Amino acid sequence: MKRKVCVVITSRPSYSRVKTVLIALKNNPSIEFQLVIAASALLDRYGSIVNFIEKDGFEITARVFNVLEGENLTSMAKTTGIGILELSTVFDNIKPDVVITIADRYETMATALSASYMNIPLAHIQGGEITGNIDEKVRHSITKLSDIHFASTKNARENIIRMGEDPEYVFNTGCPSIDIAAEIIKNPVLNFDLYKKYGGVGSFPDISNGYIVVMQHPVTTEYSESKLQIELTLEAVYSQKLPVLFFWPNIDVGADGTSNGIRSFRENKKPDNFHFFKNMESEDFLKLLFNSKCLVGNSSVGIRECSYLGVPVVNIGSRQTKRERGINVIDVDYNLDLIKSSVYYQLNSEKRQTDFIYGNGKSGELISDLISTLKLRFHKTLNYN
Amino acid sequence: MKRKVCVVITSRPSYSRVKTVLIALKNNPSIEFQLVIAASALLDRYGSIVNFIEKDGFEITARVFNVLEGENLTSMAKTTGIGILELSTVFDNIKPDVVITIADRYETMATALSASYMNIPLAHIQGGEITGNIDEKVRHSITKLSDIHFASTKNARENIIRMGEDPEYVFNTGCPSIDIAAEIIKNPVLNFDLYKKYGGVGSFPDISNGYIVVMQHPVTTEYSESKLQIELTLEAVYSQKLPVLFFWPNIDVGADGTSNGIRSFRENKKPDNFHFFKNMESEDFLKLLFNSKCLVGNSSVGIRECSYLGVPVVNIGSRQTKRERGINVIDVDYNLDLIKSSVYYQLNSEKRQTDFIYGNGKSGELISDLISTLKLRFHKTLNYN
Amino acid sequence: MKRKVCVVITSRPSYSRVKTVLIALKNNPSIEFQLVIAASALLDRYGSIVNFIEKDGFEITARVFNVLEGENLTSMAKTTGIGILELSTVFDNIKPDVVITIADRYETMATALSASYMNIPLAHIQGGEITGNIDEKVRHSITKLSDIHFASTKNARENIIRMGEDPEYVFNTGCPSIDIAAEIIKNPVLNFDLYKKYGGVGSFPDISNGYIVVMQHPVTTEYSESKLQIELTLEAVYSQKLPVLFFWPNIDVGADGTSNGIRSFRENKKPDNFHFFKNMESEDFLKLLFNSKCLVGNSSVGIRECSYLGVPVVNIGSRQTKRERGINVIDVDYNLDLIKSSVYYQLNSEKRQTDFIYGNGKSGELISDLISTLKLRFHKTLNYN
Amino acid sequence: MKRKVCVVITSRPSYSRVKTVLIALKNNPSIEFQLVIAASALLDRYGSIVNFIEKDGFEITARVFNVLEGENLTSMAKTTGIGILELSTVFDNIKPDVVITIADRYETMATALSASYMNIPLAHIQGGEITGNIDEKVRHSITKLSDIHFASTKNARENIIRMGEDPEYVFNTGCPSIDIAAEIIKNPVLNFDLYKKYGGVGSFPDISNGYIVVMQHPVTTEYSESKLQIELTLEAVYSQKLPVLFFWPNIDVGADGTSNGIRSFRENKKPDNFHFFKNMESEDFLKLLFNSKCLVGNSSVGIRECSYLGVPVVNIGSRQTKRERGINVIDVDYNLDLIKSSVYYQLNSEKRQTDFIYGNGKSGELISDLISTLKLRFHKTLNYN
Repeated sequence: MKRKVCVVITSRPSYSRVKTVLIALKNNPSIEFQLVIAASALLDRYGSIVNFIEKDGFEITARVFNVLEGENLTSMAKTTGIGILELSTVFDNIKPDVVITIADRYETMATALSASYMNIPLAHIQGGEITGNIDEKVRHSITKLSDIHFASTKNARENIIRMGEDPEYVFNTGCPSIDIAAEIIKNPVLNFDLYKKYGGVGSFPDISNGYIVVMQHPVTTEYSESKLQIELTLEAVYSQKLPVLFFWPNIDVGADGTSNGIRSFRENKKPDNFHFFKNMESEDFLKLLFNSKCLVGNSSVGIRECSYLGVPVVNIGSRQTKRERGINVIDVDYNLDLIKSSVYYQLNSEKRQTDFIYGNGKSGELISDLISTLKLRFHKTLNYN
Repeated sequence: MKRKVCVVITSRPSYSRVKTVLIALKNNPSIEFQLVIAASALLDRYGSIVNFIEKDGFEITARVFNVLEGENLTSMAKTTGIGILELSTVFDNIKPDVVITIADRYETMATALSASYMNIPLAHIQGGEITGNIDEKVRHSITKLSDIHFASTKNARENIIRMGEDPEYVFNTGCPSIDIAAEIIKNPVLNFDLYKKYGGVGSFPDISNGYIVVMQHPVTTEYSESKLQIELTLEAVYSQKLPVLFFWPNIDVGADGTSNGIRSFRENKKPDNFHFFKNMESEDFLKLLFNSKCLVGNSSVGIRECSYLGVPVVNIGSRQTKRERGINVIDVDYNLDLIKSSVYYQLNSEKRQTDFIYGNGKSGELISDLISTLKLRFHKTLNYN
Repeated sequence: MKRKVCVVITSRPSYSRVKTVLIALKNNPSIEFQLVIAASALLDRYGSIVNFIEKDGFEITARVFNVLEGENLTSMAKTTGIGILELSTVFDNIKPDVVITIADRYETMATALSASYMNIPLAHIQGGEITGNIDEKVRHSITKLSDIHFASTKNARENIIRMGEDPEYVFNTGCPSIDIAAEIIKNPVLNFDLYKKYGGVGSFPDISNGYIVVMQHPVTTEYSESKLQIELTLEAVYSQKLPVLFFWPNIDVGADGTSNGIRSFRENKKPDNFHFFKNMESEDFLKLLFNSKCLVGNSSVGIRECSYLGVPVVNIGSRQTKRERGINVIDVDYNLDLIKSSVYYQLNSEKRQTDFIYGNGKSGELISDLISTLKLRFHKTLNYN
Repeated sequence: MKRKVCVVITSRPSYSRVKTVLIALKNNPSIEFQLVIAASALLDRYGSIVNFIEKDGFEITARVFNVLEGENLTSMAKTTGIGILELSTVFDNIKPDVVITIADRYETMATALSASYMNIPLAHIQGGEITGNIDEKVRHSITKLSDIHFASTKNARENIIRMGEDPEYVFNTGCPSIDIAAEIIKNPVLNFDLYKKYGGVGSFPDISNGYIVVMQHPVTTEYSESKLQIELTLEAVYSQKLPVLFFWPNIDVGADGTSNGIRSFRENKKPDNFHFFKNMESEDFLKLLFNSKCLVGNSSVGIRECSYLGVPVVNIGSRQTKRERGINVIDVDYNLDLIKSSVYYQLNSEKRQTDFIYGNGKSGELISDLISTLKLRFHKTLNYN
């Protein structure tokens, strides 16, 4: 009898991040793979991933709309409550042997809680990392609900064990997002027509002589500042006179502050070197990063994938604070002059080497192997003595 | 401006356990006290506490029905989801400055999650304990969502710190349930008419020459065995020929197995020395315990309050495994002969001394003082270096 | 392409009532049949029907736990809300072409509302009847959400049309519950061992010389009176000195009042001619009715099936007020003497003839034929001019 | 003891429409007024009304976020389910004697269902109207749940009675929205700085020589066509060379098609005579209408308020089909030439007289008087014989 392994995807970035895990699970002959799509992963506003998923050859076992409108903290909590209510019904109907939850966005707690309350063994990808931001609460709380841990780094694995988890169930598998980076690096040519394939709005600058990529998410607990923050970043890259490829942030409290900042920048400056994208297939995005001169913003891709790709990064603000990083990253506060000078420095620096801190490119296979063979259990105790 | 402190009570045992905290909060002049009653605390089937609460002079700020029927794991998960959905609305409307959640029953997670997702500082009573049962998942997961920790023992405090919490926000306050025991011990006379005041069914044995108290809860993950387990306990105490005061268990998966076991025992044996109670005010219950010859079952009261009261306890099965205990407790498996002989041993042993392991009787005051004066915050990071 | 027809069953009585519809849908080659089981139909407390369903050869497409505990009006409303939330997800995943909802219990509104809000054509069985009780609100409200109406009587069809529905979509199909009665009447021998097959509690009276059947549901809006009412009925049938086969009522507000009444009757009278059943397969139940001397209580089975079976009925109180009935029924208030004398009268009267008021026994087939061939639509307007 | 009257507002248009009722309730000395704000009324995206409400001097008793994201039919159904779940808790906590629900938007069903399931007498404003659109299902379904009916026209009252409601509880009060129109007509001067007060985007045409107002909502069941429809309207008014004041539609399925249509029109045409508003206080809006040359679109304001104000209206498409109307309205399909010529005709026609079809301007007072004095009940039966 095949082991039923269920992955719940709740956002676009999560899908990209674990795609190699999904492929490995689907191809594993001892696994019956179940894929549930929920929350912002289904919403057009943040770029529904349903089309990508089907194009990638996956079947969707169930889909659940559970994002409550409001873009405030109350609606985030309620979204999680609805997610639990509904995912429990899904699990009761499809009866997985083990559930995999990913990272630390607030909706992932719904997956973790439903599974663990239903005594379904729970595996967690990307636990144990110290980042200094509000996501740590969710991340470590999920660790304490999880039975199996697939950490992305040596340090993360050690943190999980220090929190009292049984070392036999804590693995440093590397981060699955690095698997895709490892593929990209073998053939990084930009073999698609950027503007035609991805639409978007703004100007259509010629990128053949180099360009900057920007991806900046609002920070959950600093709602009112998100407008100011995006304006500083926009101004700083605007001043560099290079083409800028700008990616809209995904859902979170503060999204509207950020959106408004972008809109007024466009109306006031009418910049002729900016193009704005809503979303992009992850492989294409990594190619774009690999060929860029610099990534600016606060995306975790700058810390993870770019360490492997060797792309220079200007990482702004507190969102990635404390996260382990390679030497490709310069950290900077929300200060116009500092952002400007850091971007300038990175634009003029040499490409760095691949850093294996976040994995060696085989993470998906390793997770699939482990999940199909591990002795499953849902009962544990604090491993202190 | 008074600090708004909100306590959410989701079950009858939780209410009893923290009653001295509630009194201290209500009497604290720098606090505006908010009391929310939800989940099984509202249900007649498990002894609604609303009447007790009003009799005790508290006002209810809001009440929320959120227990889903089914008495299975799916319904427990869904109850939690509904709880989050609704408590978020309550918090959005009453805007507490800090929320207190209690212990580790599955519904308490709803309180913890709503508060922490809404960036309301969260305080947790009774975290950090190692018990070996399934409740550890919820307990430690709540620890990772909480900003302030009121641990009941020295060991529990140390465990919380080892899990990465900031020691400045982790306090060994003792357990508030001990406060009531400390009051009782000053005047332990049974000054009420037991059968008249509390009704119940069964015979009406004369208890003036000693009696046994039984309180045994079904164990969440052993649904099918709960009927057998209650039958062993009933048989074992039945054979001692002493009056038995038996308390119905509170809500949990398996409740029906336990209920059926009790019902068939009554029909088959028609015992003339058993009386069955649904619930009892906590003070009266502690007096009853103090004057009893022995407590049998798996209730945490045997571990906590009875350590202070010095009551001999036969603790059966895995429910309290690994919990710190005083010398008043004998542990035994679900084996008829072992339970019989252990009860026999305890019935013939001397009263033990008060053990201060779970507190000195001032816990409620201490928690109220701390919560009204501590610098509140809702942002933290794993305290490892 | 087969038409996807989805039936949502939310209670045991609904399942029995429409079983011939389910069989006809399953056997209809132009239909892909989808069966969703939800609400009290899943709960052991009310006799889960899942085993019966599987024994009857149906596959369950999805199941949804959505009954909120409390047995009060608030919990009934909330149960409906959760039902809508979850059935919408189910419909979104299984995409029916048409949904069938049944009768007028409060949970059926969840089915009706989810389907109609999702622009899925909605068919309603048993609309249009005037009963004088609180269920009329739900019944007629569902009529106004429904696109296709399968009424059980000529009068009911006319009422639906008077409410403004398009006569082309309102059919008098007869009531599907009559189909089973029509089968039973062909071979009514009690070919099963009553007490062995169905367990239950109480005495085991010999029924070979005649017996009374009792089935009395609490009345939604008269919560506090439900205890008194059941006591009057129990006393009245107790005095007849015949064996009494008593069936527990299904879920509703007031269930606890009724339960307590039954329990105190058993403890006080210790009757030796009563046996209490929790539930029974519908065919066996109809055989039992057909061979009984009288049905006492307020069940709709007395009005519907018994009119076809010709069983004498004493119908007590307001629950079936205004419902169309055959000459087999005597109506009586909650008055001990009146109930006694009416039961006495019916016990000494001759068997009546079959009355076709509620159908001719072909309702299931007719509904299946119509639903597979009708032009479906979900848009309508008040048909007045 | 004052009668507790609760109104639940779920959208901005509902608030404007019943504002005179709210004022009358608040000022009625025999009423304790409870105001609950929920659903899209709380969302910034559709113009949160919380600020207006507080400015108007009302206190909010409770607020409930319950709009699920997705802007599709599934999310509309789920929004209603969440609404029921939460409003039941609100009603359980604030215990109204009677609840008022408004009109026929999908969220109003949550109010109606919670109240009627909880046996709280329910009053419905604006029932009984025939409009030919999908809203009829909700409207008439709510009628069958309601105990008291405040119809807006003589015909509507008659329709409600024909549906089987007791004539003693069906009143033609006129429409409360007319009350505001009646006030406006007494002093219709545009005494505010339009662009300064309401912001918005686009050009700033001089409106002193006449202007057109456009308000067009997407039609629920024609999702894919909403983009085309808005484009036709935009083109038709664009060609008239007059200033156009355009109002964004409120939330509904199809909102995104409409939004995209508006955005591409702005980008392609860069019109210098269009200004786009998000929302406006209702009094100012009515003044703006009164002074306009013509209203174009499909808003019900064209049918109701404009009949009293005597404003020429071009009503496009099916949204207001079958609704009773005055002679101020020209109906037209989605055909560019027909819209153009109809607008041209209306621009060149004389002002019409006030038509009292929708009320005489005293509706709010009348409803408040009735609700404070009527004998309340929650039990009814189909009034046919």
